Amino acid sequence: MNGAETLVKTLLQSGVDVCFANPGTSEMHFVAALDRHPEMRCILCLFEGGVSGAADGYYRMSGKVAATLLHLAPGFGNAFANLHNARKAHSGVVNIMGEHADYHLRFEAPLKGDTVGISQAISHWTRVTAEPGAVAGDGAAAVQAARGRNGQIATLILPANMAWEAAEAASVAPAPLPLRRPSQAEVQAAAAALCQPGAILMVDGAALWSDIGLMAKRVAKAAGARLLQPFFAARFRRGAGTVRMERMAYRIEDNCALLAGAPALVLCGTQLPAGFFAYPGKPSTPVDPATHVIQLCDRDMDIDWTIAALAAELGEAELGPEDFVPHDLPDLPRGAMRLEAVGEAMAAMMPEDVVLVDEGVSSSRFLASALARARGHDVLTITGGSIGFGLPAAVGAAVACPDRKVVVLEGDGSGMYTLQSLWTMAREGLDVTVVVFANRGYQILRDELSAVGVTDVGRNAVRMFDVVEPTLDWVALAQGHGVEGVRVTDIDGFVATFRTAMEQRGPRLIEVVC
Amino acid sequence: MNGAETLVKTLLQSGVDVCFANPGTSEMHFVAALDRHPEMRCILCLFEGGVSGAADGYYRMSGKVAATLLHLAPGFGNAFANLHNARKAHSGVVNIMGEHADYHLRFEAPLKGDTVGISQAISHWTRVTAEPGAVAGDGAAAVQAARGRNGQIATLILPANMAWEAAEAASVAPAPLPLRRPSQAEVQAAAAALCQPGAILMVDGAALWSDIGLMAKRVAKAAGARLLQPFFAARFRRGAGTVRMERMAYRIEDNCALLAGAPALVLCGTQLPAGFFAYPGKPSTPVDPATHVIQLCDRDMDIDWTIAALAAELGEAELGPEDFVPHDLPDLPRGAMRLEAVGEAMAAMMPEDVVLVDEGVSSSRFLASALARARGHDVLTITGGSIGFGLPAAVGAAVACPDRKVVVLEGDGSGMYTLQSLWTMAREGLDVTVVVFANRGYQILRDELSAVGVTDVGRNAVRMFDVVEPTLDWVALAQGHGVEGVRVTDIDGFVATFRTAMEQRGPRLIEVVC
Repeated sequence: MNGAETLVKTLLQSGVDVCFANPGTSEMHFVAALDRHPEMRCILCLFEGGVSGAADGYYRMSGKVAATLLHLAPGFGNAFANLHNARKAHSGVVNIMGEHADYHLRFEAPLKGDTVGISQAISHWTRVTAEPGAVAGDGAAAVQAARGRNGQIATLILPANMAWEAAEAASVAPAPLPLRRPSQAEVQAAAAALCQPGAILMVDGAALWSDIGLMAKRVAKAAGARLLQPFFAARFRRGAGTVRMERMAYRIEDNCALLAGAPALVLCGTQLPAGFFAYPGKPSTPVDPATHVIQLCDRDMDIDWTIAALAAELGEAELGPEDFVPHDLPDLPRGAMRLEAVGEAMAAMMPEDVVLVDEGVSSSRFLASALARARGHDVLTITGGSIGFGLPAAVGAAVACPDRKVVVLEGDGSGMYTLQSLWTMAREGLDVTVVVFANRGYQILRDELSAVGVTDVGRNAVRMFDVVEPTLDWVALAQGHGVEGVRVTDIDGFVATFRTAMEQRGPRLIEVVC
Repeated sequence: MNGAETLVKTLLQSGVDVCFANPGTSEMHFVAALDRHPEMRCILCLFEGGVSGAADGYYRMSGKVAATLLHLAPGFGNAFANLHNARKAHSGVVNIMGEHADYHLRFEAPLKGDTVGISQAISHWTRVTAEPGAVAGDGAAAVQAARGRNGQIATLILPANMAWEAAEAASVAPAPLPLRRPSQAEVQAAAAALCQPGAILMVDGAALWSDIGLMAKRVAKAAGARLLQPFFAARFRRGAGTVRMERMAYRIEDNCALLAGAPALVLCGTQLPAGFFAYPGKPSTPVDPATHVIQLCDRDMDIDWTIAALAAELGEAELGPEDFVPHDLPDLPRGAMRLEAVGEAMAAMMPEDVVLVDEGVSSSRFLASALARARGHDVLTITGGSIGFGLPAAVGAAVACPDRKVVVLEGDGSGMYTLQSLWTMAREGLDVTVVVFANRGYQILRDELSAVGVTDVGRNAVRMFDVVEPTLDWVALAQGHGVEGVRVTDIDGFVATFRTAMEQRGPRLIEVVC
């Protein structure tokens, strides 16, 4: 047995049995070890951004840590952006980054780079294995770290000779360290604050999609407080049957209005709301300066325990039908293309329990109110704001949930970042429907330019915001990756195409010209 | 005038007039400033890896520094891999990375990340602008740094409020610091060593494509020494009329044979040769342990001066026809598909002065001996070994050399990393012919697995090396990006298609099924 094989065995014995991979020449022994363990499911992505985004989507929907296999320094660089989104989602990921044999590092080989530096710029936990006998223990520690604090990025840097030299035994990841909890006094103070009229309880994490959310709703109702969720969330439940919560908006002005006048804001599993960016003359946070902010429980603390502790203080009110989103599907729309109508059509036809990956950027907001009337579904958002999230995350979500339909709302600008994930959908036969909004440009940038006060847009800006001359042909792009694509230019076409997608299995792309 | 505008003016006044860009929401004021300066040529890439790779190719062919415009933290992450290749090529690049307004950084906005950490993991020079009045000076210093030491990666991190607040004056980049030179005693020792029979002078940098190479040849001939170039080079001249040099190989075994028995190896503008990776039981460097290695001049030192100093010691021999590659074009091949024949066809038809970007990975070696017989051309190689280099570098080379035909040798695995660059070729009407070798997988990994001694390849490995089920359709991928594509399956088809590509202008893709 060699170091690489002890690592594969350690991952498997620790319950990590999916590996999203884009191996390079430094990971050959690890690949050979994977070969001897077919119980590890290896999923090839044709770009490392697809690897890290898939691990993120997989964790969000399964709660399980996946391994990634990444090439040294620049390969990890390619994974960086979606690790950023994963980090902001508190997704647990174990990265295995190859590295030169340690004795080779004194030479200037082409691929030599700052593996530790780039890892530390994004990972919560980084370790370089120093001897072959330590590979298993380091792998177990990486899994433990990834599972800790409600999900972290853990990166194990594996010099090639650690992988190929002899090693003895595999290991098993210890349980993650216990989560921190607020003190009883802090809970009591928060409970008292929530009883003030107009106070807000803001929650995140599993409270947005699991039964913890039910308890949060009962607690808020008992206190007479508003219940609020952030705009960007790793996962939240939406549609018929969902616990009613207010959701924050994207624009800082809207959030200022939403939060104005609240006497207290209790943060439970989340952090102080902030603007996506700063804008001249606008505040950085939408929180009313007069509001008493109580940071009760951070995102990496024990959210479940904290909500239960609030319940012990405040009691739990009975919930009635008014506390849940009713079953109220929109009618099927007809006629010319309108984004609102796309939302109505999707809401009318999506089956129960869709996983909806939302990277529609500027388009999604026009669909949101209709989709809130759909059958109950889970929404994954682009938590770190780094585009190129949608298609990879859909791969991971589909691997995590093989019996659920995955739907992606994708911008044409953002989809281009990691379009290689379409191939993995085809390779793995994943049940993913990709809806690309072809507005032929970075609409969000047109909006942001105006938000910072620039209204006179000239040729250089237009040419950096518009993806025209030539237009992208998403049907051809899909076909190139082995995925069937259809272009629709009116709502009737969308309805027919989306219906087919919902009735059949397998990957499919719909280009919505809008 | 605001900070952003002082930066654009500073870049222009310093001679930086090309900006490869993928702006995000943090760079809006810079975009607005670009709008007021149409003399800055802005070129949009649909992914940041295309941006950094284009800046690399542009520098290699023009010797000029381009600016890149990149989004904060994860956007820079997407550019990382091709900055790695640029760094190893000693290409000068000025990155402008946006950043949150400094007062916004105390909040946890989605895109907040370790901008300094990721920059320092790859840049030679990193600075965060601290006040609006410093933007111009920082920009000038960045250009100076990028031009220093024969080309460096310089990254200016620009908080949004530094861009939008008022600032006075633009600046001009000072001349780069003088290059270090070896001492006269070191030159004399190297000159003496070169006079031993079998001694080797190994050169890099401009010696591989400019008149400096002529002088190096005369010096080596005067000393009776062998003249050698590295395998990976930012740029080298090849084909008819080129100064004859030996070129190192990819495989460590071949390089061991090439260097065996040399009494001395004088390194001038290059570093100690090393294996691409370490392999069990093989040496890390191919240099004969008995060889006296003299590190006369590093890649970031004054190579021109050093070769001239050697000439002053050793004299310059007259060169004869035997010192140059003769004009000896191959005949046009016919028949079934063979990579060697693809090389012959290209060599027969490529016009003088093609820029050939070589990311053919495992395929290129079969073309190399034929291409050495082509008309004189410049070759750009993947200096950092990080795939996804070819298509972006071709964009930059074509922008630098609008009157020269650019040809890319591209692997199907590597091409998928940054295929978005095809769109930029179409948008800018660049005269690039892309030849994709569709061997349907990562052939280099199949080779490397065998090089580390693994011969029994199982299902997990096969599924990570083979890009089949489904196969990629490069003609559709090209079409999706607005580029005409043709698939060829025999040599006659290749000859006809490549002839058309050489006769016409504009981007074109040829998928060679091999």
